[in-house]
Amino acid sequence: MPIKIALLGFGTVASGLPFLLTENYSKISDAAGDDIVISKILVRNENEKNRLMGLGYTYEFVTSIDDILEDPEITIVVELMGRIEPAKTFICQALRAGKHVVTANKDLIALHGKEMRSLAQKEGLAFYYEAAVAGGIPILRTLANSYASDKITKLIGVLNGTSNYMMTQMVDKGWTYEQALAKAQELGYAESDPTNDVEGIDAAYKVAILSQFSFGMDLDFEQVSHKGISSISAKDVTLAQELGYVIKLLGFIEETASGISAGVSPTFIPEKHPLASVNGVMNAVYIESIGIGQSMLYGPGAGQKPTATSVMADIIRIARRLKEETIGKAFNEFKSETVLAKAADIVSSYYFSLETPDKPGQLLRIADIFNRYNVSFQQVLQEKAQGEKARLVIITHDMNQLQVNAVLKDIQQVKDFSLINQFRVLGD
Amino acid sequence: MPIKIALLGFGTVASGLPFLLTENYSKISDAAGDDIVISKILVRNENEKNRLMGLGYTYEFVTSIDDILEDPEITIVVELMGRIEPAKTFICQALRAGKHVVTANKDLIALHGKEMRSLAQKEGLAFYYEAAVAGGIPILRTLANSYASDKITKLIGVLNGTSNYMMTQMVDKGWTYEQALAKAQELGYAESDPTNDVEGIDAAYKVAILSQFSFGMDLDFEQVSHKGISSISAKDVTLAQELGYVIKLLGFIEETASGISAGVSPTFIPEKHPLASVNGVMNAVYIESIGIGQSMLYGPGAGQKPTATSVMADIIRIARRLKEETIGKAFNEFKSETVLAKAADIVSSYYFSLETPDKPGQLLRIADIFNRYNVSFQQVLQEKAQGEKARLVIITHDMNQLQVNAVLKDIQQVKDFSLINQFRVLGD
Repeated sequence: MPIKIALLGFGTVASGLPFLLTENYSKISDAAGDDIVISKILVRNENEKNRLMGLGYTYEFVTSIDDILEDPEITIVVELMGRIEPAKTFICQALRAGKHVVTANKDLIALHGKEMRSLAQKEGLAFYYEAAVAGGIPILRTLANSYASDKITKLIGVLNGTSNYMMTQMVDKGWTYEQALAKAQELGYAESDPTNDVEGIDAAYKVAILSQFSFGMDLDFEQVSHKGISSISAKDVTLAQELGYVIKLLGFIEETASGISAGVSPTFIPEKHPLASVNGVMNAVYIESIGIGQSMLYGPGAGQKPTATSVMADIIRIARRLKEETIGKAFNEFKSETVLAKAADIVSSYYFSLETPDKPGQLLRIADIFNRYNVSFQQVLQEKAQGEKARLVIITHDMNQLQVNAVLKDIQQVKDFSLINQFRVLGD
Repeated sequence: MPIKIALLGFGTVASGLPFLLTENYSKISDAAGDDIVISKILVRNENEKNRLMGLGYTYEFVTSIDDILEDPEITIVVELMGRIEPAKTFICQALRAGKHVVTANKDLIALHGKEMRSLAQKEGLAFYYEAAVAGGIPILRTLANSYASDKITKLIGVLNGTSNYMMTQMVDKGWTYEQALAKAQELGYAESDPTNDVEGIDAAYKVAILSQFSFGMDLDFEQVSHKGISSISAKDVTLAQELGYVIKLLGFIEETASGISAGVSPTFIPEKHPLASVNGVMNAVYIESIGIGQSMLYGPGAGQKPTATSVMADIIRIARRLKEETIGKAFNEFKSETVLAKAADIVSSYYFSLETPDKPGQLLRIADIFNRYNVSFQQVLQEKAQGEKARLVIITHDMNQLQVNAVLKDIQQVKDFSLINQFRVLGD
């Protein structure tokens, strides 16, 4: 008997599902153990329904969620509307009506996932969301299955395609942030309000979700620090190159002696690091673990077909579990108490870029500040800036969060110094 | 009740399992649903047993396979002896005795996998071998699960760590093949007889295994063409760089109009391609598919802990399936009729390096040969070689296997031309 699914929404991603079901029919049916059939599609209103039927679609479009909730033949509800409401209400209703749920909605999972996961667990239903992180990269299921034998100590990812596209243009073409943003908007990679992408919020949502699968810890969005790319100048980009690095916006989760530290930040990546060549809208997740050592998964972070493929993999998994009668397992079963790192244990090397007076002795003055807190330098660059100013650029050795805060405070108190930027630097 | 496993062999990889079971005890037990206990270990003889006990190991070492086969408490047998015999006999005996089997033995799987897989299927037992391809990279299970919704059209991999280490040294340090081999042997990456690694045989085994998971086709080793790195000169390496490429030994499986084409060959990779930065002993598998598009998995190709981690992931999977009572599914369920591509459909761009007389008109002569078969050039380099000779280097546009054969035959017939090397060139 075919497995009947309902789609909530029929936008870009959802309309990629018929493509996969047609082009890859026999493989999907074999893997699922049964045919998968799109039974009903919820759309906003009669207008949208008419528009889609006018385009030649012959699906049963409905405008009320009840038509889906009350249909006993529908076993899987696939939410692809995006945003928080009404998606959240519909998913909870679907779970209460005994439907398994698949979603690609990362904002929703990051902000309200806990509630929906426990509802699904209570009802003994599947609630899968592979597509919510890094679109086409099968990262969540791989972490849950293949890394079950391993212990991850660090996860670093290029998790936002829009900002990575912009950074790639700034590096390759020497564009300014504003030029890169305008082009990303023109190409439809960035929305008219790009805040979530460029300020690291979208990447922080993904970090929060990844923390469950990689460290077993359920981080709230607020527990993930975030800093975006809007402050990065073309000058930072060329300085990075001179020093042997590439700047990208990275999400990170790291184990420290006292707990985990998670955040999103522009980061200097050594040019030989595997993440340095992740360009354009591509995403990648780089993992350090006690067993495998270093590994990386690379692929498209968004897009119709990649995201639809991840959604379909979830649907197939549910279909198989239904057949095996093993449905109801949590998507991620790895659980560990959430313990956040102490500031003294959060350690990184950093890039500091400062404007100083164009006079001798500036390096000595700045070295004195860092020396107060026992921080030493890996590399220093000094060059004339505009007017009476010089630019002083430092790559430090490892320093912890307390040292960072102390140094920043002291720099601020020096009247003729001004801190232009300060970013994390990844080790080799 | 703990799950009792037996190890066949206690070499490098096997002795990584106690490390994981200790360091990652609670995560592994939680994931498996029970504790996993190494119950017996088969070693060669009393001498080895005494040596290991002298090292402080307190496992129950046995010297007869019967001690394991006849122990009803042992549910999983983990073969880590390597080579074909007695590993093959022991695995078949274990399956006949009702034990689930995990192995990391790629030679065995590539050459005799079919027989053992059907025996396991007949007995309703698990037979998993994640570690057989690309050591620590969780490629097989990811292909089986996450790519179930996708249709792969091309798979290209850096699959042999030894030859990739050697190629990396030849590129980075300008070493000759002989220097790189000597260093690889010194470091223990290459065996005293390096044939399997450097001639592409080891990579071809992995291609044969990957063909099942990526295309559902069960290729015999003989159906995978292979050409190794021993003919690559330092000159080829520098020419590659001048032309914007990096040379690596790649395995490939490609879909064509008439069927699949699979092989191993030194390949020119565009320097911006994600595979170009896979260096040293690292491996990577790059996939093109209709859904995800382009994706890549990267990680260590061998080594104690990475390989042990993949083996442990298989053990956990069996433990879970035992608990779920879903044991006996084939590791790979994707099946498609094996159809090999016709020569006319196997298409690639190529690098040709020839020695010609150091006189004007040579390019014209060679262009005439390619032109006979409608093959055009992307790039040409001409330079003086030693003595009276010049070197002519060509990167062609796409040409099929018939065109390659015809061109090679015609070049051979020109007395004062000598073909030095001819390698595949990967498109962007």
